[in-house]
Parts: sequence; C-alpha cells; structure tokens
Amino acid sequence: MALSLNKEIQRGEEGIKEGKQEEGAYEKLGPYLERAMALQTALILFEWDNETLAPEKAGKYTARVQGALSGAYQEIMTDKAVRELLNICQKEQGLTEAEQAIVREASEELSRLEKIPPEEYRAYQELVAESARIWSGAKKAKDFDAFAPTLKKIISYQKKFAGYQAKDGQRMYDVMLDNYEKGFSMEKLDEFFGLLKKELVPFLKRVTESHVKIRDDFLTGNYPREKQRELAEFLAEYVGFDFERGVMAESAHPFTTNLHNHDVRLTTHYKDRVDSSLFSVIHEAGHGIYELGVDDELTQTLVGQGASMGMHESQSRFFENIIGRNEAFWVPVYGKLKELFPEELEAVRREDFVRAVNKVQPGLIRTEADELTYSLHVLVRYELEKMLIEEDLEVERLPELWADKYEEYLGVRPQNPAEGVLQDIHWAQGSFGYFPSYALGSAFAAQMLQFIKKSMDFEGLLEKGEVEVIVQVLKRHIHRFGKMRDSRRLLKDMTGEDFNPRYYVEYLKEKYGKLYEVE
Amino acid sequence: MALSLNKEIQRGEEGIKEGKQEEGAYEKLGPYLERAMALQTALILFEWDNETLAPEKAGKYTARVQGALSGAYQEIMTDKAVRELLNICQKEQGLTEAEQAIVREASEELSRLEKIPPEEYRAYQELVAESARIWSGAKKAKDFDAFAPTLKKIISYQKKFAGYQAKDGQRMYDVMLDNYEKGFSMEKLDEFFGLLKKELVPFLKRVTESHVKIRDDFLTGNYPREKQRELAEFLAEYVGFDFERGVMAESAHPFTTNLHNHDVRLTTHYKDRVDSSLFSVIHEAGHGIYELGVDDELTQTLVGQGASMGMHESQSRFFENIIGRNEAFWVPVYGKLKELFPEELEAVRREDFVRAVNKVQPGLIRTEADELTYSLHVLVRYELEKMLIEEDLEVERLPELWADKYEEYLGVRPQNPAEGVLQDIHWAQGSFGYFPSYALGSAFAAQMLQFIKKSMDFEGLLEKGEVEVIVQVLKRHIHRFGKMRDSRRLLKDMTGEDFNPRYYVEYLKEKYGKLYEVE
Repeated sequence: MALSLNKEIQRGEEGIKEGKQEEGAYEKLGPYLERAMALQTALILFEWDNETLAPEKAGKYTARVQGALSGAYQEIMTDKAVRELLNICQKEQGLTEAEQAIVREASEELSRLEKIPPEEYRAYQELVAESARIWSGAKKAKDFDAFAPTLKKIISYQKKFAGYQAKDGQRMYDVMLDNYEKGFSMEKLDEFFGLLKKELVPFLKRVTESHVKIRDDFLTGNYPREKQRELAEFLAEYVGFDFERGVMAESAHPFTTNLHNHDVRLTTHYKDRVDSSLFSVIHEAGHGIYELGVDDELTQTLVGQGASMGMHESQSRFFENIIGRNEAFWVPVYGKLKELFPEELEAVRREDFVRAVNKVQPGLIRTEADELTYSLHVLVRYELEKMLIEEDLEVERLPELWADKYEEYLGVRPQNPAEGVLQDIHWAQGSFGYFPSYALGSAFAAQMLQFIKKSMDFEGLLEKGEVEVIVQVLKRHIHRFGKMRDSRRLLKDMTGEDFNPRYYVEYLKEKYGKLYEVE
Repeated sequence: MALSLNKEIQRGEEGIKEGKQEEGAYEKLGPYLERAMALQTALILFEWDNETLAPEKAGKYTARVQGALSGAYQEIMTDKAVRELLNICQKEQGLTEAEQAIVREASEELSRLEKIPPEEYRAYQELVAESARIWSGAKKAKDFDAFAPTLKKIISYQKKFAGYQAKDGQRMYDVMLDNYEKGFSMEKLDEFFGLLKKELVPFLKRVTESHVKIRDDFLTGNYPREKQRELAEFLAEYVGFDFERGVMAESAHPFTTNLHNHDVRLTTHYKDRVDSSLFSVIHEAGHGIYELGVDDELTQTLVGQGASMGMHESQSRFFENIIGRNEAFWVPVYGKLKELFPEELEAVRREDFVRAVNKVQPGLIRTEADELTYSLHVLVRYELEKMLIEEDLEVERLPELWADKYEEYLGVRPQNPAEGVLQDIHWAQGSFGYFPSYALGSAFAAQMLQFIKKSMDFEGLLEKGEVEVIVQVLKRHIHRFGKMRDSRRLLKDMTGEDFNPRYYVEYLKEKYGKLYEVE
C-alpha cells in the first residue's frame, strides 16, 4: 500500500491522458484518504495522551512531532492527484450516499487547507499544541496576562485563516461558525440567542426569587474518589457505553474523543460534589454512545464521526439532562447510589436527591452550570467571540466584559480570571465558533424529546430501566449516519420539522416552572 | 514545512542538475528525516497505548491505522530524494559525529527498507499489530495451537525479510541478530553462550545442592497494590528516574518506551510477591534513565535513543541487579520498605531481606528469574531461535523442545505452554534475534562494574544513598552518546577493553559462590 501511493498517482495521471478518467476515480482516492485518516487518528491519540498522561516537560518536543504529522496530513489532502480525483468524483454517477458524503467532506477539507499556506498552518498547529499548557498555567496562577499574548496570536491566526476561507464577502465569524455547525450563521444565532435572552433571563430571575428553596448540601461530603470511580463506570455502562470498545480516564477538563467507532474514550474528574462527576460522566457517555453508534461502513472515513458539534452536544445533553436528571431515571438506579454512599445518602429520599440535582443556582463556571442557566453561559461567550472576531475587541478587555455580562445575565460576578475568562480550554485550542453549538445542542435535544414522546412512554421506559430502547431510537435516526448528513437535515428527518428553538424554551420553562412554582 | 517537502525535492534535483550537489545535502535531508521520526514516534505511541489502555475490540481497526502510518514511514525513508541526498552526504566532509551517525543510520534503514516490497512490509506490520492480541489470548488459554499459525506466518516473513537483507552469503539468523546488536553474530554468540553453558550449568547444580537454604517466604503476603505502587514510584525516583520527563503505567508485561528523551515511559505490574514488581521497576527505570540521559542534541533524530538492545539491557540489569540487589543499596532504603509494609517486614532483618531477593531458584519464567539462572533462560531461546531460523525447526515441536531444554539446563519442566513457550511476547512481535541481547546486557554490565570499581568505592556510594554519582558515570560514558556509537565501541571506550564475557562469569560465581558457600 505504501509505495503503491506513488503508483496510484501515476496510474491516475495515465488514466487522465487516456481519457478513462471516470473509471474508478473514487477507488483511486482510497489510499490517499486512508493515509490522511491514519495521520488524523495519530494526532487525536497525541491529543488524548497530552491531556491524560504525557509528562510535564514533554510538551514542547512532542509539539514538533505533532506539527510534522499535521504537515504530512495537509500535504496529502492537498496533493495534486487528490484534487484531480475529487474533481472527477464530484461529477461521477453511481456513488453511494456515503461515498458522495466522503467526496464532499474531502473537497471541503481540501479547499479549507489549500487556502492556508503550509508554513502558517504548521506554525499554528505548533502554537496550539503548546498553548493548552500555557493556558493551564495561567489558569492555575489566576493570571490572565500570562495567557493574553498567546490568545492574541491564536485569534490573529484564526482571523487570517477565516479570511482565506471566506466565500463571497462571508463574514469571518460566520466562517468559523460554519466549521462547527453548517446552516447556523450569525443571523440565525442572533435570533436563537435573542430568544434565549428575552425568555430565559427574566424567567431565571423569577426562579431565583421563588419561595421554593431546594436543599442540596448532602451532595457535598465524604464521597471517596474510588467509589465515585465505581459509580462512574457503572453509570456509563448503564446508559449504554460499551467498555469493550471504549475506555475512561481522568483529565483536568472532561472530554470525549475517538480513534474510530471501536475505540471511544471518555475522561472525567472527581470532585467533592458527587453530582459533578456523576453528570459529567453521563454527559461524556452520551458523546461516546453517539460515536459508538456510527455505522461500521463509515469507520475510519471522513464521515465516520458525529455530524457536527451541535449534534454531538445534543446527544451528550440528552443523556445528561433529559435522561439523567429525570426523576424516572433514578427509580431503578438510586439504590445503587445509596449502596455506594450509605453514610451520605441514607437519610436522603430519591425525590429530594432528584430535586437537588435539578437545583437552579446561577454560578460562574459553565461546566458546573445547571440545566436552566447553562445556555446563558454560552450566550456570554457567543457575544464575546463575535466582538473579538467582528469588532476587534481588545483581548485585554475580555476579563472585565466577561464579568459585566455574567452580572447582567446571571447575577454573579467572577472575582478572578480562573473563575471567569480562563475557565474554558476552547480558545486555547483555537476553537472559535465552537461555544454556540453547546446551546444549539440542548435545543436540538429538546426538539428530539418532543418527537420521541409522541410515540413512546419516555418516563415509563426510564422507570423500567430500559434506556436501551431510547438509545436505539437515537441510533436509528441520528448516530448511524455519522457525518453523512448535516444536523439540520438529521433533525428534520427525525422530527419532521426544521430546527425550532421554541421547544427548548418551552421544555425549560415547563420543567423549572413546575419545580420552582413560577410561570 | 509541509508542502516545502515537495519543494525540497525539486530543489534537490535542481541542485544535482546544476552540479551543486555537495552544498547542504545534509540540511536538505532534515525535513524528510523529521517527518520520518514523527511517524515513528506516532507508531511508538500507538504501541504504548495498545499495551496500556486501548479497548479490547479496537485492535483490528487500529492495526489498519498503524499499517498506513508504517507505509508512510517506509515511503518517506525510501524516497528517491532521500537516497540521492544520502549518497551525497556519505561523501560529504565536515559533518559532525552526530550528523555522520544519522547519515549512517538513515542509509542502513533505507537499505533495509528498500529491500522489502512495500506491500509485504505493510501486511507484516498489520500481522504484527494484531498478533500480540492473539498471543495474549493463546497464553491465557494455555493453548499453543491457537498461536502457532500466527507464529508460522511471522517466522516466514522474518526469514523472507532476512533473505532480502543478507549481504554476501550472510546467514539469516545473523541478519536478525545484526538488527539488535551489531558485532555479535552466531559465531561470537556460540562462544559466549558456550562459555555460559559450560560454566554456569554445573555451577548452578552446585548452588541448588548447597547446604545453604535461604528463606524468602516473607516476600509473598499482604503487599497491597496501592502501597506497591507508592514503592514503585519512590524507587524509580530514588535511582534517578525523572517524573517530569517520564510516566509510569501498568501493563501485562513490563516494558519501557520513549517518544523522545523528554518523554520516557515505564510500565510495571503488581503481583503478590513484592520483589517481583520492585525489581521490575528498578529494571525499567534503568532503561528509562538511559533514554533520559541521551544528549539533547540528538533528540528526535535517528540516533536519539539507546545504542542497541544489549546496551539497553546492560543498563536495566546494572540498575536491577548490580545496584538493586546489592546489600549496600538497601542500607538507606530498607527503612522505607518496612514503613510501607510494617506487618510483613517488621521481623525481617535487612540482611535476610537482601539474601531473600538474591535467592537462587531455577524456575520456568524468564522475567521472574534470579540473577544467576537468568542467562540460562536466554540460552534456551537462543538455541531454539537458531533452530527455527537456520534449521527450519517445525513450530509444532517448539513446546516439547522448550521443555526438554529447560529440564536440561535448569532442572525444571513446564507443565503447559503458558509457563513455557508462550510466556514471552517477543516472537509475537516478530523480534527474532532480540533475546541474546538480554544475556549480553548482563555481561556488558559486569564488565562496566569491574571498570567502575577501579576508580570508586561502589558499595560506599550506595550505602550513602549516592546512586546519582554512579548514574553520572554511566551517563558520561554511555547514555549521552545515544546511538551514535555501537555497543562494542562504547564498552571499549569506557573500560579500555573489548567485550570480555569472563567478567560476567566471574562476577556471578563470586557473588553466588559466597552466598551459597560453593566454588
């Protein structure tokens, strides 16, 4: 296979000369895409390893290795032969849906990559490989200034790259948004976040002023790490994560990644509050179950992964909130929890536990946010990203603006950047345009729930411990398609309706209106 | 850097046309070798991950990824431009020793690789990526037949590859030996192993028949895993392993690997016998310290790693046996051990502990062997490898011959293949010619000890806890040179004498003669 790549190129060119170009262009692409995917998979493994295990001082040396692999990836994807073969494939008849989708993704990737000069791409990759470490140090030291110069560099690259990629006067932030969620430009998101702001900010105020007070002191206490780990493994498996095709490790910030759909990896962290890791695990398991559910036909292809960031988040939030924070979910499971932590939970009734894990408490940390306030954390980030990219907001002003917005929407103000602007790793990884997908995901999930409830007794299934039935519905409509279809299409095919954020607002207002006895 | 690789090729060719070929050929090689090293590093990470973490069912999919990366590596190393540049470099004046060594290694790798047809190389890589799993299943089931077909395939590839590589009538097993230890062909090894067989087999008989009986029952007992892990970390650090540039994990079979000299990785396993993991950790730390000691100038180059398998093993065995099993070593350390395991070791005097960990007990498992019998385990493997490769020994006959030889040299006979021929992973990884380096390493180490003792009070340093002084000597003479110089050269430069196996035999006979009161 190795040297045959060169032979493939030669054959490809001969084919063109002899006028046989339509014949098997897709097959000729195979070895190139296979190698590109292998390089991508290696890069994913390095990232995983950096986050979970690699020694402290390895970073700057390993970053060079990652840079060289990125370079090799870019080179193969922008190879002249790949370009020619893709051109032929785009006109080719008789490709399957998966093949067409692979050609589409490869063409998009090619056009993204060939617009970025390789030296810049490589320098950027090295910057990003190193910046997570700088960010992490700055966060530890609560020192935004230590991260600001790196963040500026990242933003400057991001803008430059977006400029290269913009089509017909497309705005830079729209280019970035497009990388995570096709079909959701600023225009659409302004509308979405506008609705959330208009509906949820005043609703939250009514909730926090409600006479209903919820106890949750018992969630903090003597919850030994080892027992939490046992619970984490139990819950991940209970909701459907397959440990024969997946692993779980620890990292500073929980995440999910996958080498392919037979090797899916979750991380978590263990804190004093038991619900923190508990729901984080169900959340990551949701991401993981999505990847495990991708059809084997798509394994190690450009469409062998989730459709989009938003669709991914819809699955993780579906598991975390719609399944995991549902009272019915705990009917068969709460006993296990009491068994693991008898001291702490002996006197706590299931109803009180479920109320506690649904307690609304506007806070500073996105990843610890409750279901209701969560999208307001995202709103802050959306507005700031827009300003950074579209209005050249100075990086130095971020901490203050961040604090102001938190005060306005959530009624809380960070006292230092570690609990403010430095809390998330995303910008350190160059992920601008990513945050909105978190809120979109919750909204997708609410729309899916509304659809599922039409045809089955959702709570009844949870009470009987039959999460598997729900997983199968999601797999049938969403997971198995991988990235063949985009999120709007999947959502429409499943629910019969285009994206409609009203379901999300209604879901939240109904659930929390009832809990807090407000309108 | 990425696309510039193509530019480099073009420039390289223009250079040749314009007759400027001497100018900077070495610099032009840089980007090729950098990418090749990056691919190698990725392959090492995949291997590490497979052994320590990857989920069970990922293997066959990940094997394809590994195959594709190996193919890319082979392609770049055999690139026409690389060949031309290496030809120029070989004649180039003014290269540093490191640069010359890199050119030498690259040329050897190129000639090794270009002789193997790429499809075969790739198929072989995939076979080997999968075979560890098959071996592990067969070992678990104590079923040699489950592994035999895979082993046959591996041997057949190995022979084929050796045939491609053989120079002027070189014998196949000599080609394989050369991959691990230059300068040690069958002729030299027959002499070495002949000496061991002649001297140590009868000596061992006298030891086992000695009236001296050593108690070691207290080494097995209530040694909790967590405490053993704490001890492992303490000891690795105590002998000089740097956890800022290294990590430790668990795997079925302990090993050491490294991404580069700032990311060195040990594994261990924890058993009921405390000395099993204890000395395994010191052993692997020895390998690790070697890699950490390689000069930074050589990082991520073809010579940025240990000189050879035998030299590597000399360091691990120096740490494990010559340092770790020395009574003086335990003077400052035994207290820590008693503190960790008060119940088990309270009544055990240091002298008795040290006698126990030096107890000679001919057994079936190489990795659990004592210092005296160890090389006899290797002798068995050397003789069988020779027969497999040079005499076409049928794979089916291995279990029986294995058992016969163990009975003859060690006086014990395996009752099933898990404690016999299936115990080691090496053949499953295609590592034929590797085993002899284990015994050579011990012999190198004994020769080094003899040299070191001439100029310093070896035991005195250990008693004062100054292992660091000894590490520095090894670093100065051996570690820092990486793979620039071969093992015979390093040994000669250090000790002033060519390899002399007599030191090893004398060391063993003196130490164990004294312990067991025999001649």
